[in-house]
Amino acid sequence: MKNDEFRRHAHDLVDWMADYLEHVERYPVKPSLKPGDITRQLPGHPPMEGEPFASIFDDFREIIVPGMTHWQNPSFFAYFPANSSAPSILAEMLIATLAAQCMSWATSPAATELEERAMEWLREMIGLPAGFTGVIQDTASTATLCSILTAREARSDYTINSRGFTPEHRVTVYCSSEAHSSVEKAVKIAGIGKEHLRKIPVDAAYAMKPDALETAIRTDIAAGYSPLCVIAALGTTGSTAIDPLRAVGAICRTYGAWLHVDAAFAGTALVLPECRWMIEGIEEVDTFVFNPHKWMFTNFDCSAYFVRDTEALIRTFEILPEYLKTSEAERVNNYRDWGIQLGRRFRALKLWFVIRSYGVAGIQEKVRYHLALTQGLAEKIKAAGDFEIMAPVPLNTICFRYRPPHVMGEAELDRLNADLMERLNATGKLFLTHTKLGGHFTLRLVIAQTNVDARHVDEAWAMIQQLARP
Amino acid sequence: MKNDEFRRHAHDLVDWMADYLEHVERYPVKPSLKPGDITRQLPGHPPMEGEPFASIFDDFREIIVPGMTHWQNPSFFAYFPANSSAPSILAEMLIATLAAQCMSWATSPAATELEERAMEWLREMIGLPAGFTGVIQDTASTATLCSILTAREARSDYTINSRGFTPEHRVTVYCSSEAHSSVEKAVKIAGIGKEHLRKIPVDAAYAMKPDALETAIRTDIAAGYSPLCVIAALGTTGSTAIDPLRAVGAICRTYGAWLHVDAAFAGTALVLPECRWMIEGIEEVDTFVFNPHKWMFTNFDCSAYFVRDTEALIRTFEILPEYLKTSEAERVNNYRDWGIQLGRRFRALKLWFVIRSYGVAGIQEKVRYHLALTQGLAEKIKAAGDFEIMAPVPLNTICFRYRPPHVMGEAELDRLNADLMERLNATGKLFLTHTKLGGHFTLRLVIAQTNVDARHVDEAWAMIQQLARP
Repeated sequence: MKNDEFRRHAHDLVDWMADYLEHVERYPVKPSLKPGDITRQLPGHPPMEGEPFASIFDDFREIIVPGMTHWQNPSFFAYFPANSSAPSILAEMLIATLAAQCMSWATSPAATELEERAMEWLREMIGLPAGFTGVIQDTASTATLCSILTAREARSDYTINSRGFTPEHRVTVYCSSEAHSSVEKAVKIAGIGKEHLRKIPVDAAYAMKPDALETAIRTDIAAGYSPLCVIAALGTTGSTAIDPLRAVGAICRTYGAWLHVDAAFAGTALVLPECRWMIEGIEEVDTFVFNPHKWMFTNFDCSAYFVRDTEALIRTFEILPEYLKTSEAERVNNYRDWGIQLGRRFRALKLWFVIRSYGVAGIQEKVRYHLALTQGLAEKIKAAGDFEIMAPVPLNTICFRYRPPHVMGEAELDRLNADLMERLNATGKLFLTHTKLGGHFTLRLVIAQTNVDARHVDEAWAMIQQLARP
Repeated sequence: MKNDEFRRHAHDLVDWMADYLEHVERYPVKPSLKPGDITRQLPGHPPMEGEPFASIFDDFREIIVPGMTHWQNPSFFAYFPANSSAPSILAEMLIATLAAQCMSWATSPAATELEERAMEWLREMIGLPAGFTGVIQDTASTATLCSILTAREARSDYTINSRGFTPEHRVTVYCSSEAHSSVEKAVKIAGIGKEHLRKIPVDAAYAMKPDALETAIRTDIAAGYSPLCVIAALGTTGSTAIDPLRAVGAICRTYGAWLHVDAAFAGTALVLPECRWMIEGIEEVDTFVFNPHKWMFTNFDCSAYFVRDTEALIRTFEILPEYLKTSEAERVNNYRDWGIQLGRRFRALKLWFVIRSYGVAGIQEKVRYHLALTQGLAEKIKAAGDFEIMAPVPLNTICFRYRPPHVMGEAELDRLNADLMERLNATGKLFLTHTKLGGHFTLRLVIAQTNVDARHVDEAWAMIQQLARP
């Protein structure tokens, strides 16, 4: 494709992109498709000769777009959001054009230094103490794995890296029964084993019970285990429950355990001083992750990982073959040594664009608005009489179910709500997902999409009532 | 930012992008900067109020762009390339706009089914047998880690995932002394330990010596180890050496070892039938990775990971919490269970755009051209008399050094060539990097940038001679 063609096609795409964003509400949030519906529209073999871009773009619009779940539709209330925003998309266009590898300072000095700065900004914005240093990871899954590996190495004096596990390494890891699946995945990858992951019971608010944590640790110590690491969730995936950081931190200090905080979704709320109660006790925390790509209007992937001990992180991951050696006399950050992957996109650029375009106050305003919308809807659900709130609503996730006035068994309620969810999502007018709380099928509605406003929430609530009631 | 502003700014960006790509040769390939030069131009604190996009874009052009290494400059001969291309950038614009999470079929059906198709296309294009199934990973580092973890779990009957390492798990991993650093990193992460990674000696072509591999395996077995996995490189990072797959595969079969192929860079050459000799012996291979984001004109990240046993892969990584359960009656691919990260970008789209825009023949033509340019330059270097080719040139990496006619010691040659590289890169007219081969400082020149042509290679060679000779 010649450059003038690229210019023309890119302008065409921009108009499509702006139209899409303007009219994204016209698309069903979740498409009605059966497995294979897209596949059968795609040729089984690659074309031998190049095709005109117009054909490719046509197929994108006619085959791909109708088969997408539209995560940027403001009526997307499912999972946790994966937000984008105009400044973030603009940054992605430039990132793709520069197409630089940001694995070390020498391979892209400006990208490295911008990442340092952007992470300092972010640390300040969410109220983390100055002792934390940030680096961008792709996902919170990766960051949590990095944390557990760093804990493993720091504890073993880096001998598992060198010699592997030996019988003296009998370590245990702790998280609540509501913690994210990535903790279990990391424990497996790191060779610790799922059997050595203790899922600590939660209280009525689905937050980790510190006394149960301490009991588990003491039991493990008595059995000859060395408690390695605790993962505290600020905002569980099920119900955005907030583990009590100060109490957990005190236990970690007492027993010498590493403390990682998974604030993947909820961390963005820390831009609000009134939400900083969540990180009371941060002094005991070793590592902290939250995802600007979830609720801070920055395209995936952009996960902000903060560590107190950069040397431990680097010692865990650093490898310096000859072909990667560079000649800066001064000390620079080579982020390839700060995580698992060698190659790295220029992700700091989108964070910089987003923070500058919104300003701290602009981000705060959006987040406050989402929290207010949530509290408003939660009040309506409570007031409705035939619905039930299933968990506290500390932030912007509402866990609820339909509970009609005539007496019903739990199994029937589960079926009723699962069916309600299917019918709601089949409308294409909104998309929400579910979890189980206390064994009960629970609808989950998260109000955090970049462009969600009162109208979308009101329409969702009207639709929920309409389809729930006979 | 309102939508009409987004539209306007995005059009402005497109013009900048097209201009940048048209004039990328005007930028120094590698900037002349000292650590901190960018940082001191960036405010220490985030802005409280939002800034106009024009200011942000100005700073991008005036602070960031001059501080970048320009990977898309055709005179970029360093490392391995991280190519982009016009259709790939166009796809990235759409990917950022849809901003969909492609972790499971339900969260983006079209993305999942396009990924299946695109990976089938790619498998066919590079001549892998039909028994391989593909999935896109972010990097070859991650893919190699996935392979080693799958081997670990398949060997232990998935008990390391569940119970962790126990004393009966005495496993060893093998790669050549020229293998990529990601192998060592993966062995550490997986809890196997660097001491159990055997770096097998290489022959004069820097390829793994099969007899040395077999000796190492037999020695380990005699010492009570269980040989877990061999990583064969098709195209080492130092010199693009090709490990002998058939001989290595036969040894793996004999001793029951898993065989992973790291063809991260060189795998793209398999689009040419005349390069398929590299995968003779593919029948014994369990997993295979190559990066379209290196030499197949597709923006990073897009690493193509092919496995023979999808069930083993999924069993290694699958975790199904309630909040991720979906209701498709039929079997679908949920790619979150095919690797480490949960969140995934819509990477298949750029692969689809690139393959269709170039066509298979168009990609073949580019790759053949790069190989021909390389052979042409290698001949010139050989003929020059005062330069020395340091390794075979099976593909498009030339390892060479300046060796003036007067006799010199090895230490002096090392210094001379290190200095030559610094002076070459300081011109900004080209960028190449180095490795060590047989202990000698060796210049490495890779001809694989999307838009490189004979002129760039000729200019590089003229510059090399000019700066080398007194």
